Amino acid sequence: MLTTSLPVTFKDIQAASERIRPIAKRTPVMTSRGFDQAAGVSAFFKCENLQTGAAFKIRGATNFIYSIPPEERSRGVVAFSSGNHAQAVAIAAQSLGIAATIAMPLDAPRTKVEATRARGARIVTYDRFKEDRVLVSKKLAAETGATLVPPYDHPWILAGQGTAVLELMEQAPDLDAIVVCIGGGGLMSGSAIAAKSLNPKIRVIGVEPADANDAYLSLQAGKRVEIPPPATIADGLRSQIPGELTFPILQQLVDEIILVTEEEIIAALKFLLMRLKILTEPSGAVSAAPLLARKLPSGLKRVGVVLSGGNVDWEVLAGL
Amino acid sequence: MLTTSLPVTFKDIQAASERIRPIAKRTPVMTSRGFDQAAGVSAFFKCENLQTGAAFKIRGATNFIYSIPPEERSRGVVAFSSGNHAQAVAIAAQSLGIAATIAMPLDAPRTKVEATRARGARIVTYDRFKEDRVLVSKKLAAETGATLVPPYDHPWILAGQGTAVLELMEQAPDLDAIVVCIGGGGLMSGSAIAAKSLNPKIRVIGVEPADANDAYLSLQAGKRVEIPPPATIADGLRSQIPGELTFPILQQLVDEIILVTEEEIIAALKFLLMRLKILTEPSGAVSAAPLLARKLPSGLKRVGVVLSGGNVDWEVLAGL
Repeated sequence: MLTTSLPVTFKDIQAASERIRPIAKRTPVMTSRGFDQAAGVSAFFKCENLQTGAAFKIRGATNFIYSIPPEERSRGVVAFSSGNHAQAVAIAAQSLGIAATIAMPLDAPRTKVEATRARGARIVTYDRFKEDRVLVSKKLAAETGATLVPPYDHPWILAGQGTAVLELMEQAPDLDAIVVCIGGGGLMSGSAIAAKSLNPKIRVIGVEPADANDAYLSLQAGKRVEIPPPATIADGLRSQIPGELTFPILQQLVDEIILVTEEEIIAALKFLLMRLKILTEPSGAVSAAPLLARKLPSGLKRVGVVLSGGNVDWEVLAGL
Repeated sequence: MLTTSLPVTFKDIQAASERIRPIAKRTPVMTSRGFDQAAGVSAFFKCENLQTGAAFKIRGATNFIYSIPPEERSRGVVAFSSGNHAQAVAIAAQSLGIAATIAMPLDAPRTKVEATRARGARIVTYDRFKEDRVLVSKKLAAETGATLVPPYDHPWILAGQGTAVLELMEQAPDLDAIVVCIGGGGLMSGSAIAAKSLNPKIRVIGVEPADANDAYLSLQAGKRVEIPPPATIADGLRSQIPGELTFPILQQLVDEIILVTEEEIIAALKFLLMRLKILTEPSGAVSAAPLLARKLPSGLKRVGVVLSGGNVDWEVLAGL
């Protein structure tokens, strides 16, 4: 049974599911006999790499932007991101015909900058070694009266991200566990609330790259621990500390966190690509890695796995 | 209106659709705003690269093998193929618990040989420079009493291959045209019969690599023309002459054939991979190539595109 102290309820996630429907796809769930043989469990892949903007981020961004009162919303939105959140905010804003300004680091991948601009957003660059992105964004918001769309640490974002697992558990009934990657913890928190609400006995498993283990260390310490900037190839999961809002949810609802190596992440990405024929970004393959590496706790049979995104550069891919 | 002279009727395709259901997936149809912008039409991709065995071939092979009378079927099946047909026959045979023997060339890609063997098939290798694969297969069939499963030139195969477009036209209504690659012509023939039966006004467009233009030249000449062995990267479409059964169907039902260059094929494969996040083999991307290259006839709005397969080696992919 979930306590009532959570900042997001199951009803919030259900409402988000309706609210985001015009923009976010109900992504397919894929299975693979070959993967199951290699992993020793039946895996059900929720393909957020096939989502609008090729990542789950559209769910939270749409739920947030569509929840802003209309008169406030008309003044536009601001966000900071070097990646998938930027595109998601641009897409959701464009769908409402409102202005989006995105602060992106000078050295952000050009494909991600172009994809964000193609969605009609204004890009403001900043030097991530000299400037604070939150301050840059807040200044932009103050200048224009626009609303800042945070990347994860907000109830509207969490409720939106929770909709992926809500769908997954409808599409693949009777799961024993869900496996979800942890960056800032927005996807994991929303997923955990959705999963435990639908089935209090389900095992909720987080995954982090071994050198981006801020949530793992924080759960061990019982408080938010900050780590040095991680170097993992999974660029979407290079968070250094869990969110203020997300951390207590992880503490309450995540049963365990599994750490995976860079080699295990690359092996999972390659397997998904060459055998399931779908492209994930390194962060998007992280949740599949512990299954292939046989690092899951024993006794699990039907396992839901959220493939969080698919935005990776050709050069990175060819380099693997 | 279709003439009655065709060797396969729409009812045969509908029956095949029921017959193959235990094995062949109803594959998803994907769309992409970015692709449509680049192509100038709305494309509906029938994802046979996400099919069982990662190719449409499972449709024809299953329909054929499930149509063999049981007492005959119990003696097993034989096929020759270096690629997707081999896997398809092995999968369908395994599902019925009957023996499959596949003649594969000595230099077949090891991944395809292994995938076929993993499905329980017995592999017999032959030297494709010295031995005739049809004779090798017929000898194997004669020795064991097994039935030879032809790769394309048989009504049961055609009816099975036609089920992909049958599904596509249900999943994406009101198409102006369908675009399908041509190898031996099995997929194209079955697709054309399904499409023109459902909508006599639909435009049926075939695509071939420029140097594997046997169907194109044959339609021009009004008779089956044989070409030298093609070198195209699209290894599934290296046929040298249209089938005896398929050619008259192409003559009657295909409105035009578009030729695409190697560069156009690779550009389509890369676009599908990097933007739609799905992996096609070079042959599987051929049907998308004329859209991206803006080679379609003008006036088309909603275009169904069959992505025929996804089996490609990592080394080939990295080499692009």
